[in-house]
Amino acid sequence: MDNHTSFNPRETAGKIITCNAAVVRGPKQPFVLERIQVDPPKKMEVRIKILYTSICHTDLSCWKGENEAQRAFPRILGHEAVGVVESVGEGVTDVKEGDHVIPIFNGECGDCIYCQKGTTNLCGKFRVNPLKSVMANDGKCRFSSKDGEPIYHFLNTSTFTEYSVLDSACVVKIDPKSPLKKMSLLSCGVSTGVGAAWKAADVQAGSSVAVFGLGTLGLAAAEGARARGASKIIGVDINPDKFDKGRTIGITDFVNPKDSSKPVHEGNEWWRRRLQLRMRRKLGILREAFLSTHDGWGKTVLVGIYPSPKLLPIHPMELFDGRTITGTIFGDVKGKTQLPDLARDCLQGVVNLDGFITHELPFHKINEAFGLLTDGKALRCLLHL
Amino acid sequence: MDNHTSFNPRETAGKIITCNAAVVRGPKQPFVLERIQVDPPKKMEVRIKILYTSICHTDLSCWKGENEAQRAFPRILGHEAVGVVESVGEGVTDVKEGDHVIPIFNGECGDCIYCQKGTTNLCGKFRVNPLKSVMANDGKCRFSSKDGEPIYHFLNTSTFTEYSVLDSACVVKIDPKSPLKKMSLLSCGVSTGVGAAWKAADVQAGSSVAVFGLGTLGLAAAEGARARGASKIIGVDINPDKFDKGRTIGITDFVNPKDSSKPVHEGNEWWRRRLQLRMRRKLGILREAFLSTHDGWGKTVLVGIYPSPKLLPIHPMELFDGRTITGTIFGDVKGKTQLPDLARDCLQGVVNLDGFITHELPFHKINEAFGLLTDGKALRCLLHL
Repeated sequence: MDNHTSFNPRETAGKIITCNAAVVRGPKQPFVLERIQVDPPKKMEVRIKILYTSICHTDLSCWKGENEAQRAFPRILGHEAVGVVESVGEGVTDVKEGDHVIPIFNGECGDCIYCQKGTTNLCGKFRVNPLKSVMANDGKCRFSSKDGEPIYHFLNTSTFTEYSVLDSACVVKIDPKSPLKKMSLLSCGVSTGVGAAWKAADVQAGSSVAVFGLGTLGLAAAEGARARGASKIIGVDINPDKFDKGRTIGITDFVNPKDSSKPVHEGNEWWRRRLQLRMRRKLGILREAFLSTHDGWGKTVLVGIYPSPKLLPIHPMELFDGRTITGTIFGDVKGKTQLPDLARDCLQGVVNLDGFITHELPFHKINEAFGLLTDGKALRCLLHL
Repeated sequence: MDNHTSFNPRETAGKIITCNAAVVRGPKQPFVLERIQVDPPKKMEVRIKILYTSICHTDLSCWKGENEAQRAFPRILGHEAVGVVESVGEGVTDVKEGDHVIPIFNGECGDCIYCQKGTTNLCGKFRVNPLKSVMANDGKCRFSSKDGEPIYHFLNTSTFTEYSVLDSACVVKIDPKSPLKKMSLLSCGVSTGVGAAWKAADVQAGSSVAVFGLGTLGLAAAEGARARGASKIIGVDINPDKFDKGRTIGITDFVNPKDSSKPVHEGNEWWRRRLQLRMRRKLGILREAFLSTHDGWGKTVLVGIYPSPKLLPIHPMELFDGRTITGTIFGDVKGKTQLPDLARDCLQGVVNLDGFITHELPFHKINEAFGLLTDGKALRCLLHL
């Protein structure tokens, strides 16, 4: 068990904290470790000390400035982390100083019609929004440079900093006995993948699942399918190096589209009989994934970001064969009310989190960590703050 | 109650029947009433005397030869009808001579993995297949001209003839007390529309539904939504003449896209809060329909044929807002096992079939009936055989 509460909240609560953050000042510019100022949390906000954080492809997408509307700089990226509450703002009752927490980019206010509805995890107020760069309360930033220049927030979280301020709707308390490093995985990648299998695809025992793309999300989806008792889990990737890792997770079969001139869906008969999870960004593969599900009941679940402006490569009549296609945010998991259950399942070994953290580096080596991700060498590289 | 069993099965069973049929000899060629020969039913087949039939847009699509692969001529079109069993082939036990029956273009064999599954009505053997033009048993036609030339079947049914031969999987027995004329509507249009609302969209009491396109399918979907207790049923059509008919069915609000320069989905707030059913063929409207459903849980259900080669006008990221889009064949109703329940609901007034049959003509005026449909003047024009 870790003990990271080295700060003294009695000294910092209500005051500005000066700390280190990795700031991006423009698209594709390297992260610069700067001294920044972090304001105290306002009403219904929480200030947390980030203990571990890792990098996800969504950070990469924003860092590249792929979508013009997202280009708010200087900015603190990062959304996958684990931390400890330093102080809470007025009205916050569900977490308190010292609590171990997971930041969630797709919040849950609990009050809106979406949160009241059992069937969606898209909160009306705090759902994932890559265009949002300020706090909901007052439209302002809680971060500033030492010259007083505002530094923008990212994805309701901003975790590439020693301290961050989040809406309490985006902070989930976890059991203090949980292994902190692995809990960081639940902040995005593993929850999204396991949730895609459990909730969005609703994988049943004995069913067949294909996972296209064996990155963290894909492997987490495979792990979710394994935990649900899927009898066949097919991993599809053009990088055969991924297969070794996949085998340890429980993937039973592998398909490398490069090994065949035929489209992936024109494979063996068993190939057609499955649910499947779609984890890659290429639209052609999306069509392959859709058509390789079983007609009548096959489900394709999209996870991740599709920056291409191209539309769905599916003909309307192809929707009449009983195949369905949906997207999932955060694996359809409601963050505040359902993530603690998933965290418990991980603690109890229902879901195995081993193997997802492939590298660990000190925070100041964040640019190196980015390189590991873009080169496809790392699943998750955990940064220690 | 009708009495149409004017034939004597004892005289015709096992023999070739010579009768009238409306034969199409090439794309867009007028129907020609010909004397044809109808073979006796083979194993697991049923020969029925068609009493009433009507024309649906799917007949029109094949008649036009829109899809080259469908061009099998000479052919007997027609798939929406009601009839009486003249004789049955070897092994048929669920219907017998004299039974009143509805032909179904989307059959149910009861044995295949699809039929065994509760969740799909797409039979592995007898699902709707516009490319199929012969009997499954032997790959041959049961129809021939007086010169012995084979005449092709259509959509498992071929109802524009006094006698037709169908697989028993495509014949559904109904209560002999049922009003025959109206039961013909259950053979395609009304079952598809009501099923789209009840099964595919699963409309709940108090919900809001929008129907794009107020033809027979659209109005049947509205009737299904009304029967389920939808509180708001919005009809969308560019032809305001359709609104009077819609009002009698129970449509509560109307939107004519021509009355506004804005896209349909940018309407009032209530406009966003709904399930909806999509009944039109234009892809632009398909996008409108999809985006006008409520994010988080809105469902768009496609019904009918989209002959355009254009792909779905939806971006993959738009699937992440919790909206779903699916297509339905025959309203997801399993023909043999579930259509009798729907027929009973119609008999008991749960579903109101009044108003769908707008015209009636003798069989030999089939070309006139086609004109009424293509001109948008008729919902269903019932042909009397």
